[in-house]
Amino acid sequence: MVLLNDDFLLTSEPAKRLFHDYAEGMPIIDYHCHLVPKDIYENKNYPNITRIWLNDGLYGDHYKWRLERANGVPEDLITGDGDEYEKFLAWVKTIEKAIGSPLYEWTHLELRRFFHYDKPLTEKSAKEVWDKANALLQTDDFKPRALIKRMNVKVVVTTDDPADDLHYHQLLRQEEATNGFKVLPGLRPDNLVRINQGDFGAYIKRLSTAADIQITDYESLEEALDKRFAYFAQLGGKLSDHGLNSYTYEQITEEEFNAIMQKAIRGGELSAHEVNGYQTLLMEMLMKLNKKYGWTMQYHMNVLRNANGPQFRKLGPDTGFDSMGSEPGIAGEIMKLFADSVEEDLIPKTILYSTNPNDWMELATGMQSFQEAGVKQKMQLGCAWWFNDTREGMHEQLRIMAQQSLLGNFVGMLTDSRSFLSYPRHEYFRRVLCDLIGEWVVRGQVPEDYDYLGQMVQDICYNNAREYFQFDSQE
Amino acid sequence: MVLLNDDFLLTSEPAKRLFHDYAEGMPIIDYHCHLVPKDIYENKNYPNITRIWLNDGLYGDHYKWRLERANGVPEDLITGDGDEYEKFLAWVKTIEKAIGSPLYEWTHLELRRFFHYDKPLTEKSAKEVWDKANALLQTDDFKPRALIKRMNVKVVVTTDDPADDLHYHQLLRQEEATNGFKVLPGLRPDNLVRINQGDFGAYIKRLSTAADIQITDYESLEEALDKRFAYFAQLGGKLSDHGLNSYTYEQITEEEFNAIMQKAIRGGELSAHEVNGYQTLLMEMLMKLNKKYGWTMQYHMNVLRNANGPQFRKLGPDTGFDSMGSEPGIAGEIMKLFADSVEEDLIPKTILYSTNPNDWMELATGMQSFQEAGVKQKMQLGCAWWFNDTREGMHEQLRIMAQQSLLGNFVGMLTDSRSFLSYPRHEYFRRVLCDLIGEWVVRGQVPEDYDYLGQMVQDICYNNAREYFQFDSQE
Amino acid sequence: MVLLNDDFLLTSEPAKRLFHDYAEGMPIIDYHCHLVPKDIYENKNYPNITRIWLNDGLYGDHYKWRLERANGVPEDLITGDGDEYEKFLAWVKTIEKAIGSPLYEWTHLELRRFFHYDKPLTEKSAKEVWDKANALLQTDDFKPRALIKRMNVKVVVTTDDPADDLHYHQLLRQEEATNGFKVLPGLRPDNLVRINQGDFGAYIKRLSTAADIQITDYESLEEALDKRFAYFAQLGGKLSDHGLNSYTYEQITEEEFNAIMQKAIRGGELSAHEVNGYQTLLMEMLMKLNKKYGWTMQYHMNVLRNANGPQFRKLGPDTGFDSMGSEPGIAGEIMKLFADSVEEDLIPKTILYSTNPNDWMELATGMQSFQEAGVKQKMQLGCAWWFNDTREGMHEQLRIMAQQSLLGNFVGMLTDSRSFLSYPRHEYFRRVLCDLIGEWVVRGQVPEDYDYLGQMVQDICYNNAREYFQFDSQE
Repeated sequence: MVLLNDDFLLTSEPAKRLFHDYAEGMPIIDYHCHLVPKDIYENKNYPNITRIWLNDGLYGDHYKWRLERANGVPEDLITGDGDEYEKFLAWVKTIEKAIGSPLYEWTHLELRRFFHYDKPLTEKSAKEVWDKANALLQTDDFKPRALIKRMNVKVVVTTDDPADDLHYHQLLRQEEATNGFKVLPGLRPDNLVRINQGDFGAYIKRLSTAADIQITDYESLEEALDKRFAYFAQLGGKLSDHGLNSYTYEQITEEEFNAIMQKAIRGGELSAHEVNGYQTLLMEMLMKLNKKYGWTMQYHMNVLRNANGPQFRKLGPDTGFDSMGSEPGIAGEIMKLFADSVEEDLIPKTILYSTNPNDWMELATGMQSFQEAGVKQKMQLGCAWWFNDTREGMHEQLRIMAQQSLLGNFVGMLTDSRSFLSYPRHEYFRRVLCDLIGEWVVRGQVPEDYDYLGQMVQDICYNNAREYFQFDSQE
Repeated sequence: MVLLNDDFLLTSEPAKRLFHDYAEGMPIIDYHCHLVPKDIYENKNYPNITRIWLNDGLYGDHYKWRLERANGVPEDLITGDGDEYEKFLAWVKTIEKAIGSPLYEWTHLELRRFFHYDKPLTEKSAKEVWDKANALLQTDDFKPRALIKRMNVKVVVTTDDPADDLHYHQLLRQEEATNGFKVLPGLRPDNLVRINQGDFGAYIKRLSTAADIQITDYESLEEALDKRFAYFAQLGGKLSDHGLNSYTYEQITEEEFNAIMQKAIRGGELSAHEVNGYQTLLMEMLMKLNKKYGWTMQYHMNVLRNANGPQFRKLGPDTGFDSMGSEPGIAGEIMKLFADSVEEDLIPKTILYSTNPNDWMELATGMQSFQEAGVKQKMQLGCAWWFNDTREGMHEQLRIMAQQSLLGNFVGMLTDSRSFLSYPRHEYFRRVLCDLIGEWVVRGQVPEDYDYLGQMVQDICYNNAREYFQFDSQE
Repeated sequence: MVLLNDDFLLTSEPAKRLFHDYAEGMPIIDYHCHLVPKDIYENKNYPNITRIWLNDGLYGDHYKWRLERANGVPEDLITGDGDEYEKFLAWVKTIEKAIGSPLYEWTHLELRRFFHYDKPLTEKSAKEVWDKANALLQTDDFKPRALIKRMNVKVVVTTDDPADDLHYHQLLRQEEATNGFKVLPGLRPDNLVRINQGDFGAYIKRLSTAADIQITDYESLEEALDKRFAYFAQLGGKLSDHGLNSYTYEQITEEEFNAIMQKAIRGGELSAHEVNGYQTLLMEMLMKLNKKYGWTMQYHMNVLRNANGPQFRKLGPDTGFDSMGSEPGIAGEIMKLFADSVEEDLIPKTILYSTNPNDWMELATGMQSFQEAGVKQKMQLGCAWWFNDTREGMHEQLRIMAQQSLLGNFVGMLTDSRSFLSYPRHEYFRRVLCDLIGEWVVRGQVPEDYDYLGQMVQDICYNNAREYFQFDSQE
């Protein structure tokens, strides 16, 4: 019973065998993350572990920042300009209180897998870790591309605005053979979806320029987006991703859509009715385009963002002040959207995520009404997301996917991360997966047939994603 | 660790002992199912396993159809007129992906218990199973009544419209002694409850004819229903069943009720307010009648039905396009209904089911406010239903019933099934029940007293239902 | 596997070691309960076990009453004037059906820990228990203060109206040294919060008198409350407690607040809008005062109270007719309240409880947006409450606190009880806590370092509460 020993999380013999003989060695497809293509391309060493683990100014790991705030750490040691060793130490003191948190395990897993440090991180060992890690971080093995390669990652899909020029994706594409992995763009049109936030007029101008089309209405928007989908597809794009913090289905006409767009471009304030109607029609437009290009659409739902006004004004978004949404019935609203769009056969391959596990059974059973003949597992319940990226969250998502649909078709894990050190989360997921199947073996619920179960494990770890997203067609 | 071995799902010695020594041999009362009385009466052999397992035209097991659709199986191999062996094969290929699904276990359990086939069903073994099962299906042992009898079923309660003439129930009643089991009608007034769906006027005409009363208003409706309750009761009816896909409490007067009925009979479109008010008063009328006849009322709540319009128009209802409802606060609305009806002491024995496990704690704690002196466990939380008919769903329902009320009074499992092969679900439930109690023994939470625990297990498996529904009064 | 053996609930060696070597001996801080200060002060023996366990007229343990009602026990044997041995017997027959219920385990735990009776309580053993317990109840060891002391309780925080004169707290304060424990007042302004229930005008008069300030508006209310806070603080008050059965955020002005108060004082009926606005501003006023005095604010949310009208009119509140609230999105409304109040930095130390576990993840992730630099774990998810006061409820609350925040900072368990025999619930909690951490050790998720884990366990059992509530500053 050593921390993160070889069999950690594996509580039965079948689980151990499935993990070590089948899952452990499989490559990784990270089909949704927040890595920055520029960082991968430039491939620079990090000066110290604070920079790669915690923060580089306002850029960094807001999961960790939230925990530090719970421990009362002052902001200058989190996002501010405090001394970097002091920052590291503030994290160490926080993590000592964090048993049972996935961050406790990720932290130690990253120390083990990358830095070959296998003792607990404590106030006492902090200096030793700091010195050891910082020395290693200066080596070639710790440059971003080396880290990705070491983790056996084959595909990285980033998160990009449709107006993005994908400059670094172009550059990285040229070095694919050398790198041994692909970096593909993932289209995330947040700036379109959140019509009532930010400067919509300015964004439409930016998107118009990118597409070289004057966007003024539904039709020109679709035309512009079509060009951007084509551009993303040309660089290997296969997925889009849609943040629906909240959502209410509402049907409107194209004319109403045009009027709402015009109003928003002029900076007018939209009613809830207008936002809902606009988002409904926009999502259906995006479905059409995803279907046209054979892409997969991801929905990331039910999030309360930027809840702390004073901190938002100081630090901006994505700094650790988001939480699980509590929109009651959001899954029902999404089902209305699907009920409407299935009438015109618009629905592409779709993966549904919600931060709120109360929604999962509704999503998993609801999606089953929209599967499609000839497409294997068109609709999927996405892997446990964000606050649910825990042993129990994963366990629950896998159980629901297995009981309400077909686990054997599941596309598996992604990192959703901003850090090059996050890939051990795949190992974590694979351990949870093998442990769950091991439980079933032990209880006599599935046959103890390792060829059969091992194949399924490998499919979920890698093969299914490759086939479902059609990455194989490129290799 | 053989698939579905003797001790499958039983993870402790006390669990094994409780199951094998107490639960396993108990008879079954299936107090709610969707078996067709005509099929039981006519007692015909099925031509092959596709027909009894999967479909007979549009009639069949929509749980299985949903899984096949997730695997991309084309509709002609599901509900269409595809070759029946091909259909079977499509199911086999689907089930191979379905580890962790209750359907995986039910499928193999049915193969074992009825067909004495104990290997996994795979593409390789498909032909062997097909041949073996089809041969057996032609024997007398595989006629519906023999299947029911083999499973030691004592009572089957079907699902019947109040206007139904119960012709086959009458015929079956005459053969009760020979059969060794009762087939009793269960009154389900969906056509009354769903006033805004289907042709309400035509239905009222049908019910009027059945009751020989011209139904025009609250009073005549109650009179007509009273006669139908009496008719059902005469044939052994003891239960009614109410599908509340969604529900909002709203108080209206009898006069308003009459106006709404008239409007609906004329084919007028009802407002949400009108539907809610009508359903509220109708449910209270049904409570009164259930109480008068000493029946038990079942509520089946929170379902999203027929979500896929194009498929609904092709295939009709109950074809696999329903899902868990996401009506927020439906439990609260039901509590308002009870709060209102307790004022006039209307509430009969009641069992509450929701597809949405988020509702269960609210229902289980809420019902405790309406228990009645002199009636043992008047209000019950129903066994895990539909999408929750899984090891974990059952575990959770039992835990909640135990922690919020009295498990020792629970009336236990039903099949809710359309198939004569579904009775092993009772075995599944009993294993889960014994395993849960076994866990408590192991953790020192209950005494290891097999007389005591065994008696309780047998009560939950059979005796409680017999007493609660008063089936014993007839035997 | 003996009922409630030494290792009950402890399923691993690390769990056993953590419990027996670290948790078991720690003192108790009961920072929220419903014990009556007068009863502690008067320190009288109870005439029999019915009186201390079940009821003393309408005063008693409504958890038990609910279970008895589920078993059909007539009211005269619950809250009525039935024979007291018959009452005890009715409870015994109920508890025999209650395996899996926390009440089954609490009942037996109390028999063991206080009465040294270690066999199951059954109809057969009832008389023996009755005689044995009643004899012991007449001894000095079974007087309230002796019971508290025997359980190693250091602090008891009661639940008191702001208008209360705290007479018995004053008297008890003088005997603190003799008693060996403190009894401190906890301020619970239900009569202020529930402006639309009861006689608000009469209550305002009562509060005005207590504060010696004529309360007419926002300003005078704040002034009056400030005096009451000061009075409570003077007697050692460190906590307030707020029952928000339901809550909707709504912003109003002070002028509107004044108008609403005036209307309510005059007995006018308030609109939902008025109640929501009033409660929002009142909660913010209470935040300010809690912050000013360095107190901790507890929110007890989402409860459906007094659902059974006829019983409420007969028996009054707190008699077993409350249940889990099903207000969808209440956590989101609370987050709006915090989002508003953080703008003016009003939020004091806060503990959030909901009866509905569906709310927990939303509360636990939401609160993380409002932690404060320099305050260790300002916001906490409260221990599993009321209907969740079960092994699984506690397990889930601990898991969520651990995964979404810092378990090492958690303030731990309270009894929330009306009974002097309830303190073994702390033992129960400690077993669950140690078992959970033991699971983590076994799975390799935390280091098997007993100094480290043992310290954390002791912190959660006692030290954290002492420090967080600043009880240490008084000792």
